[in-house]
Amino acid sequence: MQEQLEKYFDRLWPINRSLTGDGNRETLDILSEIIPLTIHEVPSGTQCFDWIVPPEWNAKEAWIKDEHGNTIVDFAVNNLHLLGYSVPFEGELTFNELKEHLYTLPKQPDLIPYLTSYYSRRWGFCMSHNQFQKLDKNGIYTVKIDSSLDEKGAMTYGDLVLKGKSDKEILLTTYICHPSMANNELSGPLVTAFIYNQLKDKENYYTYRFVFAPETIGSIYYLSQYGEYFKQNLEAGFVVTCVGDDGQFTYKKSRRGNSLPDRAVYTILKQTESEFKVIDFAPRGSDERQYCSPGFNLPVVLLLRTTYGQYAEYHTSGDNKDFISFAAMEKTILKYVEILTLIEKNKKYINQFPYCEPQLGKRGLYPTLSEKEKAIEIDAMMWMLNYSDGDHDLLDIIEKCNIDYKTMMNVADKLLLKGILKN
Amino acid sequence: MQEQLEKYFDRLWPINRSLTGDGNRETLDILSEIIPLTIHEVPSGTQCFDWIVPPEWNAKEAWIKDEHGNTIVDFAVNNLHLLGYSVPFEGELTFNELKEHLYTLPKQPDLIPYLTSYYSRRWGFCMSHNQFQKLDKNGIYTVKIDSSLDEKGAMTYGDLVLKGKSDKEILLTTYICHPSMANNELSGPLVTAFIYNQLKDKENYYTYRFVFAPETIGSIYYLSQYGEYFKQNLEAGFVVTCVGDDGQFTYKKSRRGNSLPDRAVYTILKQTESEFKVIDFAPRGSDERQYCSPGFNLPVVLLLRTTYGQYAEYHTSGDNKDFISFAAMEKTILKYVEILTLIEKNKKYINQFPYCEPQLGKRGLYPTLSEKEKAIEIDAMMWMLNYSDGDHDLLDIIEKCNIDYKTMMNVADKLLLKGILKN
Amino acid sequence: MQEQLEKYFDRLWPINRSLTGDGNRETLDILSEIIPLTIHEVPSGTQCFDWIVPPEWNAKEAWIKDEHGNTIVDFAVNNLHLLGYSVPFEGELTFNELKEHLYTLPKQPDLIPYLTSYYSRRWGFCMSHNQFQKLDKNGIYTVKIDSSLDEKGAMTYGDLVLKGKSDKEILLTTYICHPSMANNELSGPLVTAFIYNQLKDKENYYTYRFVFAPETIGSIYYLSQYGEYFKQNLEAGFVVTCVGDDGQFTYKKSRRGNSLPDRAVYTILKQTESEFKVIDFAPRGSDERQYCSPGFNLPVVLLLRTTYGQYAEYHTSGDNKDFISFAAMEKTILKYVEILTLIEKNKKYINQFPYCEPQLGKRGLYPTLSEKEKAIEIDAMMWMLNYSDGDHDLLDIIEKCNIDYKTMMNVADKLLLKGILKN
Repeated sequence: MQEQLEKYFDRLWPINRSLTGDGNRETLDILSEIIPLTIHEVPSGTQCFDWIVPPEWNAKEAWIKDEHGNTIVDFAVNNLHLLGYSVPFEGELTFNELKEHLYTLPKQPDLIPYLTSYYSRRWGFCMSHNQFQKLDKNGIYTVKIDSSLDEKGAMTYGDLVLKGKSDKEILLTTYICHPSMANNELSGPLVTAFIYNQLKDKENYYTYRFVFAPETIGSIYYLSQYGEYFKQNLEAGFVVTCVGDDGQFTYKKSRRGNSLPDRAVYTILKQTESEFKVIDFAPRGSDERQYCSPGFNLPVVLLLRTTYGQYAEYHTSGDNKDFISFAAMEKTILKYVEILTLIEKNKKYINQFPYCEPQLGKRGLYPTLSEKEKAIEIDAMMWMLNYSDGDHDLLDIIEKCNIDYKTMMNVADKLLLKGILKN
Repeated sequence: MQEQLEKYFDRLWPINRSLTGDGNRETLDILSEIIPLTIHEVPSGTQCFDWIVPPEWNAKEAWIKDEHGNTIVDFAVNNLHLLGYSVPFEGELTFNELKEHLYTLPKQPDLIPYLTSYYSRRWGFCMSHNQFQKLDKNGIYTVKIDSSLDEKGAMTYGDLVLKGKSDKEILLTTYICHPSMANNELSGPLVTAFIYNQLKDKENYYTYRFVFAPETIGSIYYLSQYGEYFKQNLEAGFVVTCVGDDGQFTYKKSRRGNSLPDRAVYTILKQTESEFKVIDFAPRGSDERQYCSPGFNLPVVLLLRTTYGQYAEYHTSGDNKDFISFAAMEKTILKYVEILTLIEKNKKYINQFPYCEPQLGKRGLYPTLSEKEKAIEIDAMMWMLNYSDGDHDLLDIIEKCNIDYKTMMNVADKLLLKGILKN
Repeated sequence: MQEQLEKYFDRLWPINRSLTGDGNRETLDILSEIIPLTIHEVPSGTQCFDWIVPPEWNAKEAWIKDEHGNTIVDFAVNNLHLLGYSVPFEGELTFNELKEHLYTLPKQPDLIPYLTSYYSRRWGFCMSHNQFQKLDKNGIYTVKIDSSLDEKGAMTYGDLVLKGKSDKEILLTTYICHPSMANNELSGPLVTAFIYNQLKDKENYYTYRFVFAPETIGSIYYLSQYGEYFKQNLEAGFVVTCVGDDGQFTYKKSRRGNSLPDRAVYTILKQTESEFKVIDFAPRGSDERQYCSPGFNLPVVLLLRTTYGQYAEYHTSGDNKDFISFAAMEKTILKYVEILTLIEKNKKYINQFPYCEPQLGKRGLYPTLSEKEKAIEIDAMMWMLNYSDGDHDLLDIIEKCNIDYKTMMNVADKLLLKGILKN
């Protein structure tokens, strides 16, 4: 899997992504080789709740040269150099005129910052502070930005619904609006596409919905279309972001705090990871801000590695291929699949023998010879039987007994097969 | 403020206060210079719940002299020398007869204890144990107590209602029955009067009620008159006692534990004090015993400095001007005002854009240029918006996000002004 | 008491007990000298829920001899040598044939294990691993097991109901199916019988039910008869097991977790023991597995010393008279009686003066002279009064104030006597 991840990473990396534009289309086309997305175009100007889909932005060429013709920065070299949504511009400027349009990080002087101005018309360039300090303060600079902001354009997104036995849905949503950065955020689309790959041939109970859209405005548009449906049908959702590095797993709670995905993520991390982080819901971050807004309050959590804003390279040119690990990314994908498997199995099973214990021995489930130490599986059966009372689901019982979730799923199957438990 | 506090302290200090009597009237007259109290006289013998207002007690003169005419103790020198509610007495006694009427603190031999016998007729004197031990065991002593217990007298108290926009009330109650002691309890009446001073010219939302009455019987009488009204209209109450020294702030919970004043006091202390004490409700102490009796169970808390019974000088001559600090008293007054300001602002605000986030940028509330680190005010707005859902009031949201309460109040105002939040 | 305990222990020790058989009858006969049990015989083959009462098992003689006539093991010497419920067998076997029927504990080579095969027909012997290793691998062994499995037999149990003022019941249940072991389980029947001894002459509020039956099948049968009655009438139950050694007290919660006996046991242990263990309910162990099965979910807890499975000697010949202590057993009995006394006293008392405090002074319950430090009894009265509001029972109030339960019971009585509290 790691080779495939790297192959797709390398192809997707150089593309200029933003809220809108051809780069997003190209990105979705490549991802469709893994997950056959339906591509949607939402016209610029479309109203969704309090927001309006912005004009489509495309940039062909953008650079600064000094009076000797030396290129200072060039969008073609690193798309972070161009302030996202820069309006077109051509002209000659003094240093003092130019510097009003330059953005740097004085505290991280080696790195190019990532900046955008989606909803206010500006142009600008981002560069390392080191480079900025070497600029000739008396020089004259030529600037060219060949970009377009098309009011008749569109915002592009892709989605796919993988039907399961039930119409109840599990959502995996990620965003495609970040240009050349790796953890935040080529990792999210890659991991999401590869999770699809793991699920597509299974007999799933739940219907899975995969969404690849720009952050914020993309999710807001999607919720304007599906929000009410989700309130009825969404059992679990995940905003897939910052899943590329090999930092500790981080689980960020949904606004509800104890919804189905909250409980499943916590149980899996607790049983399979020696260390991990748990953070309470806070209305900041990524698309959980929309999915967990008070009018929706959906059961949407995050399972991340190193979290947005919590690493120095965040939103800079330092968030690159060196920062991430394809081995870690594979592990993240498999962790998601573990969680989804547990969610699939989670049910309220009902013990058909609630008065005293059923006699397990005569059904071959209990040793006929008394033993000083009983197998963990016996313990697991006792817990399943005692708490399969209509009030507790499998996750509740695992939480109570803290027996390995695989043993518990296995025991539930055995007891179902013997007719001792029923769904 | 500190000079004024000291000036009033010095005038009130020498007055003999008790459950009843002219000292209480004089005390209320002086306090009325700061807060224009309505003075009430409750006839002795008045029934209130299980209690009866005692006869009015006044003491003009009280001393012990030895056979050489030397004054041993004199009420005129320190009113603690006379056991509160001592009946009149004149006579000559041997040491052995006298000592049955003498009270000392063997473990604190320098200090005069403060004792009373409100409901059982006695006479007695209090003195330092050191002085007691020097008394001539063979001497003859002359005792004179010129006191009166008038069944036709009255119990005096004062109150003032400062009308706000709402009829819902906030109560500040303190007690005026302690003779010359400083923290417990000239501090309570002084602090309460000066809180009035801070509030009187404001446009208050709540109606404030200030009560100056003797402890226990005064509160019981007051509750016999207003208890049922309070059950409907009291939103927050404070028993103001032991607020004079510069010890850590101490918050004692109401019986309910999480009522409005509980939450406001806790939030303010947590955000403004590096160290403070929290004590659970217990049915002992001061007038919270009455306000939080099970039939009333009112939202009444205490914000104290060093608590009754928790300092060695408590109920002795050691609780004097040296024990307290007018700077600390001023800080206490301002802390109460902070708490009341937060209570005034506390409301359930309603986000008018509950589906996804409102677009703050177009309203000038969000930077149009993306930034790596967002201002705390942006965070504060996000919390206000996400939790202004009809279930959470401002205090709930501050508790969740632990952002400075002033920033949160400020942000609430801004969002109200823009029509994004409504009351 | 300790001498009596030892006397009965010594008489009961050598008897071979099992699910059924004459040993159990003999055991119940001896216990009836202390507690006049009604003896019941449940026919083999009786269905109770998912279970069937097994055939009656009796063993007269059982041994292995080598070809030289030397006795290897003999049931007459230690009844643990014979696998419980062994079928009759006579024959000569090689070592390899014999060893399929031998059970040892390689990790505890000195000890004879305790094993049974109640529901699967087998024969076998248990011996120390040391002895097993010394056996001649080339020898020929003679085996004789003179036992019977009688389908027309019966399962024997005993019970006694000690009527109190109320029909509401407290259950003490223990099991009589363990042969010669001491903590688990001669201690349970002995302690239970002696608790009866402590209660029989008291004027009890509750009706006490004592049950001596085999583990699991005995309780299942009992619940098939009384389970529905218990759901209506059982206020508190205790499975009395592992109460013989001088290890720390251990309290195992009921499935409900906070039922009446849970609260009483916890309060008594907290107030009277410097160290003790609390373990959450788990559906393993002894007869709590049946009493706390989801269809019954009765308020049944355990108060043990060192818990089943938690000591090396458990279910071996090492669990013998040396392992236990009659002084500890006496202390256990008295601890149970303390708990039952508190349960007897526990009620919701109702304060007749809920509005402010009643005036305790005029009833002689409060000092008429004010004091700096109040007696703990005053405090106790204040807590009783404030929380005797119809929502809190005595145990709730003790939990809140953590005042010694004897003081609290005493104060409740005083306030009842004065008419301030009522039931």
